[in-house]
Amino acid sequence: MKALEDKILSEGRVLEGGVLQVGAFLNQLVDTSFTEKMAADIASAFADSCITKVLTIETSGIMIAFATASALGVPMVFAKKNKTSNLSGEMLTAEIRSFTHNNTYTAAVCADYIKPDDNILIVDDFLANGEALRGLISLARSGGASVAGCAVQIEKGFQQGGDKLRKEGYRIYSLAVIDEMSTDRGIVFRQM
Amino acid sequence: MKALEDKILSEGRVLEGGVLQVGAFLNQLVDTSFTEKMAADIASAFADSCITKVLTIETSGIMIAFATASALGVPMVFAKKNKTSNLSGEMLTAEIRSFTHNNTYTAAVCADYIKPDDNILIVDDFLANGEALRGLISLARSGGASVAGCAVQIEKGFQQGGDKLRKEGYRIYSLAVIDEMSTDRGIVFRQM
Repeated sequence: MKALEDKILSEGRVLEGGVLQVGAFLNQLVDTSFTEKMAADIASAFADSCITKVLTIETSGIMIAFATASALGVPMVFAKKNKTSNLSGEMLTAEIRSFTHNNTYTAAVCADYIKPDDNILIVDDFLANGEALRGLISLARSGGASVAGCAVQIEKGFQQGGDKLRKEGYRIYSLAVIDEMSTDRGIVFRQM
Repeated sequence: MKALEDKILSEGRVLEGGVLQVGAFLNQLVDTSFTEKMAADIASAFADSCITKVLTIETSGIMIAFATASALGVPMVFAKKNKTSNLSGEMLTAEIRSFTHNNTYTAAVCADYIKPDDNILIVDDFLANGEALRGLISLARSGGASVAGCAVQIEKGFQQGGDKLRKEGYRIYSLAVIDEMSTDRGIVFRQM
């Protein structure tokens, strides 16, 4: 999506350690109108997939997941990273390794919210090593649901997670794929 | 909002300890279409307030905050509860006491995202003791912004936080106010 690439170049910042800061429009201060345009693009790509629910994980994927679910006319559900007092009953869970935060956490969704007749689209803001998407795929399947594919706003192509998932047969739809990124040489997008 | 009261009665569950579980439509499995109706109601109430940004705090207020900001045609920004590697630079912060989780946390937003010319609408899913709203009001003001008011989906009127804020002169707009709630006697809404 050319408009997203342009916005990453004009408003994003490359930090040390492979971090791309896009909080100014994408995942902390959120440009709602632009988020809806991105959601419309994703919804269009999965328009024929009979999606019944959009699944994401807290926190920063929630905005694009909500907007995508709204564009598809379906509910969204988000997995929680820490079980709270407001969650009770049977849970679907998955262990997810975070390279960003160098820890492992349990993603959890109430078992009532994902059912065998669901056809799930997984949506997140970033795709790097692919661990979060793998965890969410596992979580959805543990509830008996089908997974139609995954959509992300920004894929860090140089971290390989997306391409590994594609080789395994998953449909991975990324609005922008960054193949090279460094503080001195800037950002190179994959031609798609 | 009568439709929200009806949905709380039909799909919500009152648990021990003053917990109202509305994860089935409001804050885990999210009815996107209904969320947009609620957001339109809030946006209509603040249509003449010249709002420039909607502020919330992660996680479960993000959906209604995003939808309200979208309806108002402004950006949304959410405060983070734990500073991450993707936040850098000067921060606006506020200490918030959570009675639900019995702890105190620091809410943080990049200082670049809230400015003195901002007129902020604070949006959250629940209002109980009012500590989260107070923290967000303090955070917005520390960035020099004005606060036009606060809007929530569900106010636990019996916990007094909303009425205390109103007595102090804040505009607090709640889509549903619960004045009584117990596992045996059910839910009583405030007449508005």
